[in-house]
Amino acid sequence: MSTTPRTGVIVTDPPRADHDAVTALAGYGVATVHEAMGRIGYLGPDLRARQDGVRTGGTAVTVLCRPGDNLMIHAAVEQCRPGDMLVVTTTSPCVDGLFGELFATALAHRGVRGLVTGTGVRDVAELRAMAFPVWSAAVSAQGSVKASAGAVNVPVVLGGEVVHPGDAVLADDDGAVVVARERVGEAVAAGRARLDKEEAARQAFADGELSLDRYGLRETLAGLGVRYVSAAGNEATR
Amino acid sequence: MSTTPRTGVIVTDPPRADHDAVTALAGYGVATVHEAMGRIGYLGPDLRARQDGVRTGGTAVTVLCRPGDNLMIHAAVEQCRPGDMLVVTTTSPCVDGLFGELFATALAHRGVRGLVTGTGVRDVAELRAMAFPVWSAAVSAQGSVKASAGAVNVPVVLGGEVVHPGDAVLADDDGAVVVARERVGEAVAAGRARLDKEEAARQAFADGELSLDRYGLRETLAGLGVRYVSAAGNEATR
Amino acid sequence: MSTTPRTGVIVTDPPRADHDAVTALAGYGVATVHEAMGRIGYLGPDLRARQDGVRTGGTAVTVLCRPGDNLMIHAAVEQCRPGDMLVVTTTSPCVDGLFGELFATALAHRGVRGLVTGTGVRDVAELRAMAFPVWSAAVSAQGSVKASAGAVNVPVVLGGEVVHPGDAVLADDDGAVVVARERVGEAVAAGRARLDKEEAARQAFADGELSLDRYGLRETLAGLGVRYVSAAGNEATR
Amino acid sequence: MSTTPRTGVIVTDPPRADHDAVTALAGYGVATVHEAMGRIGYLGPDLRARQDGVRTGGTAVTVLCRPGDNLMIHAAVEQCRPGDMLVVTTTSPCVDGLFGELFATALAHRGVRGLVTGTGVRDVAELRAMAFPVWSAAVSAQGSVKASAGAVNVPVVLGGEVVHPGDAVLADDDGAVVVARERVGEAVAAGRARLDKEEAARQAFADGELSLDRYGLRETLAGLGVRYVSAAGNEATR
Amino acid sequence: MSTTPRTGVIVTDPPRADHDAVTALAGYGVATVHEAMGRIGYLGPDLRARQDGVRTGGTAVTVLCRPGDNLMIHAAVEQCRPGDMLVVTTTSPCVDGLFGELFATALAHRGVRGLVTGTGVRDVAELRAMAFPVWSAAVSAQGSVKASAGAVNVPVVLGGEVVHPGDAVLADDDGAVVVARERVGEAVAAGRARLDKEEAARQAFADGELSLDRYGLRETLAGLGVRYVSAAGNEATR
Amino acid sequence: MSTTPRTGVIVTDPPRADHDAVTALAGYGVATVHEAMGRIGYLGPDLRARQDGVRTGGTAVTVLCRPGDNLMIHAAVEQCRPGDMLVVTTTSPCVDGLFGELFATALAHRGVRGLVTGTGVRDVAELRAMAFPVWSAAVSAQGSVKASAGAVNVPVVLGGEVVHPGDAVLADDDGAVVVARERVGEAVAAGRARLDKEEAARQAFADGELSLDRYGLRETLAGLGVRYVSAAGNEATR
Repeated sequence: MSTTPRTGVIVTDPPRADHDAVTALAGYGVATVHEAMGRIGYLGPDLRARQDGVRTGGTAVTVLCRPGDNLMIHAAVEQCRPGDMLVVTTTSPCVDGLFGELFATALAHRGVRGLVTGTGVRDVAELRAMAFPVWSAAVSAQGSVKASAGAVNVPVVLGGEVVHPGDAVLADDDGAVVVARERVGEAVAAGRARLDKEEAARQAFADGELSLDRYGLRETLAGLGVRYVSAAGNEATR
Repeated sequence: MSTTPRTGVIVTDPPRADHDAVTALAGYGVATVHEAMGRIGYLGPDLRARQDGVRTGGTAVTVLCRPGDNLMIHAAVEQCRPGDMLVVTTTSPCVDGLFGELFATALAHRGVRGLVTGTGVRDVAELRAMAFPVWSAAVSAQGSVKASAGAVNVPVVLGGEVVHPGDAVLADDDGAVVVARERVGEAVAAGRARLDKEEAARQAFADGELSLDRYGLRETLAGLGVRYVSAAGNEATR
Repeated sequence: MSTTPRTGVIVTDPPRADHDAVTALAGYGVATVHEAMGRIGYLGPDLRARQDGVRTGGTAVTVLCRPGDNLMIHAAVEQCRPGDMLVVTTTSPCVDGLFGELFATALAHRGVRGLVTGTGVRDVAELRAMAFPVWSAAVSAQGSVKASAGAVNVPVVLGGEVVHPGDAVLADDDGAVVVARERVGEAVAAGRARLDKEEAARQAFADGELSLDRYGLRETLAGLGVRYVSAAGNEATR
Repeated sequence: MSTTPRTGVIVTDPPRADHDAVTALAGYGVATVHEAMGRIGYLGPDLRARQDGVRTGGTAVTVLCRPGDNLMIHAAVEQCRPGDMLVVTTTSPCVDGLFGELFATALAHRGVRGLVTGTGVRDVAELRAMAFPVWSAAVSAQGSVKASAGAVNVPVVLGGEVVHPGDAVLADDDGAVVVARERVGEAVAAGRARLDKEEAARQAFADGELSLDRYGLRETLAGLGVRYVSAAGNEATR
Repeated sequence: MSTTPRTGVIVTDPPRADHDAVTALAGYGVATVHEAMGRIGYLGPDLRARQDGVRTGGTAVTVLCRPGDNLMIHAAVEQCRPGDMLVVTTTSPCVDGLFGELFATALAHRGVRGLVTGTGVRDVAELRAMAFPVWSAAVSAQGSVKASAGAVNVPVVLGGEVVHPGDAVLADDDGAVVVARERVGEAVAAGRARLDKEEAARQAFADGELSLDRYGLRETLAGLGVRYVSAAGNEATR
Repeated sequence: MSTTPRTGVIVTDPPRADHDAVTALAGYGVATVHEAMGRIGYLGPDLRARQDGVRTGGTAVTVLCRPGDNLMIHAAVEQCRPGDMLVVTTTSPCVDGLFGELFATALAHRGVRGLVTGTGVRDVAELRAMAFPVWSAAVSAQGSVKASAGAVNVPVVLGGEVVHPGDAVLADDDGAVVVARERVGEAVAAGRARLDKEEAARQAFADGELSLDRYGLRETLAGLGVRYVSAAGNEATR
């Protein structure tokens, strides 16, 4: 992505997406923003919410660790500001519990809104009790060392998407989504429009309208040659 | 299963299992019905409840989609009646979020009791809030297209079992089970007997009886040559 | 592990770890004990709690079953005493529901504190209702037979760790950990010290101290050649 | 699929697909037959060839075993005739080595053409040496017991497809495909036509024709709004 | 990565890495280049060579498809030039056989050196026979449709790494690695130096020198407190 | 398994199983030895041979590494003697390529017979060319660091089995098996008997005898209530 070495560097002051815009986006929900942006940015089904019913978002502080090593998370704490989300990846797959209650305590003090990590987390009971939300690929008590260099605030890949420092990262019970920093304003508008569209559709469907009619899908089906047949006198269904 | 093409068809009026029988079965629970029917029909451990504590069931409206494409779910809504369960599969593995709150709104309007899908679902917070129960292989915000033909109300395979339209599909916190339409009456009787048997066993075990004695398993163990040994003076346990 | 046959034997009276020590350990939590013992004994991220917020522990009664066969769990019930934890493994991977409500009823009667199993469990709604805690690799309604010999109270391997009968097995929302019977006293002391250390760190982090300073990690970073750079005028972050 | 119990039965004389038709089909290859039949019947990517470069096929003798138990394969051998393919599944997932060289020796004596199994196989070096082809979900030396009832020649589900006894099962380096007994004649004709079509396309592509032109896909792309843009002066590619 | 829409676009003339440099790099091997570049760019262990003993590389033509849909590969063929490597990804995980012999025939005609894909491939016997090398996440005969828009020559993510059109993609029996276009010259020099270093080490190790001595690792071990102990009189090993 | 710390120690002279006995055992093959020992010791289907047709075995030198870190393999080389097999595990799951050609060169110089590892390997083309056999959980070019303490020649768990230093570890195309050092003599005798038994069965099956008769399984089937039915006039098979 650049000629900068991927490890061995801590970037101290990456530009962040606009705070108010990110906060607005966070309220729209992951699925809505993902759709509004053209179905991109979803960080995948492997990152699961470790609590129920939380919807949040912030500006990404990115961390790249070695497997089984959380040294760079220690370094990242200092780079966090209010309204940030911590985003952790590893150079190789790792489900160890690189993050737990003590990190959450430090991050809560700094106004960080949550954690999204491709690794495991531990102390999940304590994290729920203190209302620090986490999205992770696993829950694991397996501890880590602090021995190898990684990076803070460099672009990272998580769930098949690139997350740059300062991007908006939003998360809820459906997982997490990234919106590039430069597109946050666009996303707010698109998300707002999408919400309105969904609300209208919800009302219509609650009243019995069919999406086949609302979205003109009868034509699509006919164009694909899909036929309606009766089960009576037809062995197709057995 | 037949010479009918598997895609490109929507069967409009498959015979359904008896409504009252399915409702009775739903109350017995998945594990009990599975046992009562001779340990068949379980749709496997990969289909997880996305809410806690719901036990339901209905007659299957089956859907076969292409991966990443939910066109046929739109078509299926119209085929649903009160007391149905929607059962969704794909021609290739797919964990995208093919189903969400808007579909649930339309289905709830039609009296559908829930969704069982081999794909992902999204809007899980909203689905819980509106009490529309879902069982799925994944949670994913990843959106879908509406571009390819599939089928509605043809036999489908899910979790290694065949589900025919009109079969009873039951689900609870243990997953989902299918009972063939023709065997629903038999299942009600067998399930009732099984419940009685379980209740008697539960009472006995709560009072301290051992299943070794209740089920005559001491003879089984002896017949297999299993020996009881003391740890004292025996290095076997270290 | 010994010249004793691994199957076909039920050891009736393995020595148990000290009851009070195990109870004390159980209160410390899985992650803390795992760390205190030098990061060993964790039974891995695949064993998930099937209820929220329970922290318990006991002395292991170990069971080795054939896949799809729970005969030896029936045999194991009789060997259980108050304060035990049942630990179940299979000779080959198996996610069937080898354990359910009836077993839990029998074990609760005997004062057993919970189940840790590398297989599936079923009746999870009922297990939650009766407050019998389980940790398992899966939830599955798939039933089992009672046809093949296995063993009770022999050493077993679960999650890459060896569990001997009588060892302390502790479990909470982070999973489960084993502490060898001979090391339980040591673990109580080490766990107590670890708790104190964590409490002090928690307070410091809540007050804004950085772990970089508290643990001397700035030196580690410098020794590894990690550099701090400004994003300004640096293309590294895009 | 019927009211017949799924286990506890050995069907001795299921009708087989026409021998010559199956032999012809086997020569067409798995991918070609799968396409010719409308993209159905593929037994999935998890069933891998355990040798290179073999293309074969036969009429299915189906086996349903319990996990870790190969009793019913012993029973199935007797039901095999020249030109058959043995198809093995289990009631729960199982990767143990239920099949090895001794079974292959017995089957080769009876003129069986190969094995397709959702379980593991062992003795793969010996199987290659004796040229008995196998497709399996795993290679495993893990041995099995002979303790539980299953079935022979009942419909089974493998890789998300139903295989009935007597169906044509074809296999090569791409995996395995099932063609329903009643459709084998149709498949021979369709496969032959598909081969011809592929040969013509192969020649055209070797000569430089583009599939965009041959299949009229430029219109498809245009209809979907896909645009051609130059990288020059466009930041899209970096 | 940019404000360009990720789908719906075909970039016709992305700049390519220097042809001679890429050819030189290809000869160094994946592991050597990966190490020489600071252990980055490896496309992960899931992409397996579908033939033995081939080492090649070229400039990436990237393709983004919808799952189960290979329309954009058809579009990509036209964009390929001699010395290219085709790199295919999907918007959601997909192991269907999106690529086979006919595509390979067209690509061979255009001088393309191979395929690296996060999906499945089919016709593997034919691909081996025609010596068109492929690296894929799966082998699958499952066919695809040509119905949905994607993109050609936009940045894609594969195996946790970003591949830009025109980057060098190298592959051998160890998998595949990407080197950014701008760094190819640097990579040739670093790879050459690495090869020399490896050759010297190989000779030394073949003569009996220990890496502990050659790399100064005895000091590392001592610094970590690793102790040498004799098994005699020590129960540590049993 | 003992009160010895699991990490931070290199045991220099563990007792080895008898060299001639291990060599004899290696010739019997993995499946045969596994069966002869009562179906224990198999290291599981995830450890795959990375070459075809090799059957070997030796005395285990065990290594425990941190994920992504091969420092302890460097330390282990010095502990290896002619006739050893290197057995590598990690404290957490890791598929990185911790081992490659340079290690193999050093081990070949010392007379080591092969590698069995729960991690990845790289340089597989070179390893095949130099005929150094490896069994691994993955192939990966991903490189490693040399930063953290582990152990050499302590008991390790691999594939659900415990391997002690000095145990016999045997491997072929079916995977790998461990035989405890104290049981190697017993295993030679049991394996020899098993080979004879298999040879007799092979001859009988090649001559057409059925295993149903040879093993008395008709009685087993009858005892389980398995019935033979004709397909004629029976809907069971459709």
